[in-house]
Amino acid sequence: MGFRATPRVRSLHSFPGITVAQIDEEVAKLLQLKAQIGGDDGKHQFVLKTAKGTRDYNPKQMAIREKVFSTIIGCFKRHGAETIDTPVFELKETLTGKYGEDSKLIYDLKDQGGELLSLRYDLTVPFARYLAMNKITNIKRYHIAKVYRRDNPAMTRGRYREFYQCDFDIAGQYDAMIPDAECLKIVHEILSGLDLGDFRIKVNDRRILDGMFAVCGVPDDKFRTICSTVDKLDKMPWEDVRKEMVNEKGLSEEAADQIGEYVSLQGGMDLAERLLQDQKMSQSKQACAGLSDIKLLFSYLQLFQATDKVVFDLSLARGLDYYTGIIYEAVLTQAGVATVSTEAQNGAEESVSVGSVAGGGRYDGLVGMFDPKGRKVPCVGVSIGIERIFSIMEQKAEAAAEKVRTTEVQVMVASAQKNLLEERLQLVSELWNAGIKAEVMYKKNPKLLSQLQHCEESGIPLVAILGEQELKDGVVKLRVVASREERALQSVHIRHP
Amino acid sequence: MGFRATPRVRSLHSFPGITVAQIDEEVAKLLQLKAQIGGDDGKHQFVLKTAKGTRDYNPKQMAIREKVFSTIIGCFKRHGAETIDTPVFELKETLTGKYGEDSKLIYDLKDQGGELLSLRYDLTVPFARYLAMNKITNIKRYHIAKVYRRDNPAMTRGRYREFYQCDFDIAGQYDAMIPDAECLKIVHEILSGLDLGDFRIKVNDRRILDGMFAVCGVPDDKFRTICSTVDKLDKMPWEDVRKEMVNEKGLSEEAADQIGEYVSLQGGMDLAERLLQDQKMSQSKQACAGLSDIKLLFSYLQLFQATDKVVFDLSLARGLDYYTGIIYEAVLTQAGVATVSTEAQNGAEESVSVGSVAGGGRYDGLVGMFDPKGRKVPCVGVSIGIERIFSIMEQKAEAAAEKVRTTEVQVMVASAQKNLLEERLQLVSELWNAGIKAEVMYKKNPKLLSQLQHCEESGIPLVAILGEQELKDGVVKLRVVASREERALQSVHIRHP
Repeated sequence: MGFRATPRVRSLHSFPGITVAQIDEEVAKLLQLKAQIGGDDGKHQFVLKTAKGTRDYNPKQMAIREKVFSTIIGCFKRHGAETIDTPVFELKETLTGKYGEDSKLIYDLKDQGGELLSLRYDLTVPFARYLAMNKITNIKRYHIAKVYRRDNPAMTRGRYREFYQCDFDIAGQYDAMIPDAECLKIVHEILSGLDLGDFRIKVNDRRILDGMFAVCGVPDDKFRTICSTVDKLDKMPWEDVRKEMVNEKGLSEEAADQIGEYVSLQGGMDLAERLLQDQKMSQSKQACAGLSDIKLLFSYLQLFQATDKVVFDLSLARGLDYYTGIIYEAVLTQAGVATVSTEAQNGAEESVSVGSVAGGGRYDGLVGMFDPKGRKVPCVGVSIGIERIFSIMEQKAEAAAEKVRTTEVQVMVASAQKNLLEERLQLVSELWNAGIKAEVMYKKNPKLLSQLQHCEESGIPLVAILGEQELKDGVVKLRVVASREERALQSVHIRHP
Repeated sequence: MGFRATPRVRSLHSFPGITVAQIDEEVAKLLQLKAQIGGDDGKHQFVLKTAKGTRDYNPKQMAIREKVFSTIIGCFKRHGAETIDTPVFELKETLTGKYGEDSKLIYDLKDQGGELLSLRYDLTVPFARYLAMNKITNIKRYHIAKVYRRDNPAMTRGRYREFYQCDFDIAGQYDAMIPDAECLKIVHEILSGLDLGDFRIKVNDRRILDGMFAVCGVPDDKFRTICSTVDKLDKMPWEDVRKEMVNEKGLSEEAADQIGEYVSLQGGMDLAERLLQDQKMSQSKQACAGLSDIKLLFSYLQLFQATDKVVFDLSLARGLDYYTGIIYEAVLTQAGVATVSTEAQNGAEESVSVGSVAGGGRYDGLVGMFDPKGRKVPCVGVSIGIERIFSIMEQKAEAAAEKVRTTEVQVMVASAQKNLLEERLQLVSELWNAGIKAEVMYKKNPKLLSQLQHCEESGIPLVAILGEQELKDGVVKLRVVASREERALQSVHIRHP
């Protein structure tokens, strides 16, 4: 605050020949000094919050989350997937060189001595590392876990720094497009099952994109960067994308315009057919291979009754470096989002704007990057982006003013009179031992009213009421909370002192 | 490697008045330099492994893990618990000052600009932060998640740096020992339910320990450090513990000997009774409060039919700073471990040596540490240490040569002849749409034998076989894999081209 540094920090060039060990020592000393100073020059105040871009889940949110997971896991299991788990952090070098420009978003752990570690950025790279490490060449697995990205959070739209991914992948050398079609079928089943409104699954192929770039005159070394500009077409109009290509990335106007024509195309098997006949496109072997596979894919999707939602869209260009073949992305269409907002009492302002809710593709080279001998294991997979789905489900639940139960308690053990704590504890214990979900208030002498209120608040359907007279008669009164209907049940076990 | 540093790193004392901002700048420069040098002086080789102290779970291990979780979650739900989730990292300051000497084991994230973060060390501190942040004064919740400790891993004994905790806690102002007794009941139910052999639950109370230290003549400021020495009694003989107290911690020999007498005591309600009459112990008000509560606890445990496994043990002294009342720890007794090893084919060498599998206690002050006004929320809870239990279950499964199924597939859709891929895809899709767990091989023309072999390997009970004749007749042959029994089912839906 107005204080200016007196001793200028010397340039590091004054250390010719410094070693890593010496740097480590120097860094440790500096950080120790920082800790002594007090970390932030003493201006500190304790803040009660979660880390930026993260959130807690409260019991209601957890109840919704569990419902969503159960739909998704149910689908994965229906398709015969096994499950695995990997650690939340990996050796830093395991993640290096896998994410292109997004690598800057990786969370690193502090160098506390020992290995350099990073939090996982997705579940795909750890999966590939797992396959290579265990020399697995065939597996169909799902993995549901949190991943970490130091991105700009937009939490109202379900974009967090810590978020769940639900991944399903098929690894192995198989006949073309059969596992790929199953991945799309799975997206179709899950999005239909979750009842989120209408959706579209866009598909494209890295080879079609690369072939398109080649025939449009994009220089080889610009494929990746032009590809990531095309990737912005879902957020930016074509004019701006074109500008970025020409002004920032130095592409010729002709090339950009030719790309512009292709990326405006959308269709189905017929479009693939047409492009195979396209004079320019058909010059690229890569593009032709991709287009034939798109045709095959659509034929399998017909058998799976899933073509209604699938669109071949040449503007789809997923950012990650590791894709080699087909790529896809599912979006909830405006209709779906509108459904949510019309249900909401406060109308359109409340609507959750969501983009892509699932994505994936084929990555035949990734496992080979980890194998000492470079042996390849072809893979294709899909990742469901659950946070956006949670946001919608939460909003739907709120809009419908649904009462979400957060426990499954069946019976509350209560008493109408004083001094019956022991009898209540005995009875609740018997219920637990019999596998019945039961609760008792942790008070010696709770009021009957507060016990009944607890039942109503948390949706407990039954209350077992103990009283002096009942104990004498060897019975327990069981009351249905909603209807107040009562019935006396024999209870020979409760000892009455 | 025989290389000696030439330029001595200057002492930091040459920076009087350096600011934190300048330190950060200096550190950033040094680390940049380190990165330029190559991180490890160029001696690098890519290593294919998980981070130290962590592991992957393969599908078999996951199947066992899910079974264990389902027992534990079943018990938590039976007792009416809700569930919450918190982020894997917290603001560093949230964890500061909660773990005493163990704080050095916390994983910090790298300072990449922004907040200073640490991986959670347990689920209790995040729970307390959650309660304070949301001003919750009453909740019964469970939380199952991974926690992180830079400890010395001993993975064969189930000690990892990344490991699961399964926590159940009751927060709220209630009558003494009722929620505490329920926590012990839960440990009893879970350890019985998992069938891990015999176990003991040791209980003690922080107030009894503190009172004992006071009447034995331990100076006030040595309570915590003497307590952590007592905590080593489950790993070290008394002689060594006594030596540490006297030689390292400077306790008088008399005080140490008096402590020695007390900490050898074990018993039940009778022991609490006896100590309440003990001339020395009864001088401490704290100890008497603790002893009365132990008596009350045992009376409730009798009603819960759980006293058979519970021992009042004065040597139990859990390390964490935040406990204020009753503490407990469950151990599998040798008998249990022996059961595992006798079942194993290779005998005793294979046995997993396990210590504590659950622990917990009362921490009435922790939430108040987070509340701006210091408002207290009394809490008691238990944490199940699942990794050791996994180790035992895995070994048991291996010893019993049990076939662990890793998928739930009910039907394999197969064909006996060539060129029936489309028909197989159509049928499997119909099964999926009907909610049946089904698989198909991703080959155009797989051999019937390899399709059947897959069923046997992964335990799929049924195979639906398509053939030319069946398609003409409009049927599908359904075969029971184990018995080879077959039946023809009508299948009007499959179009045969």
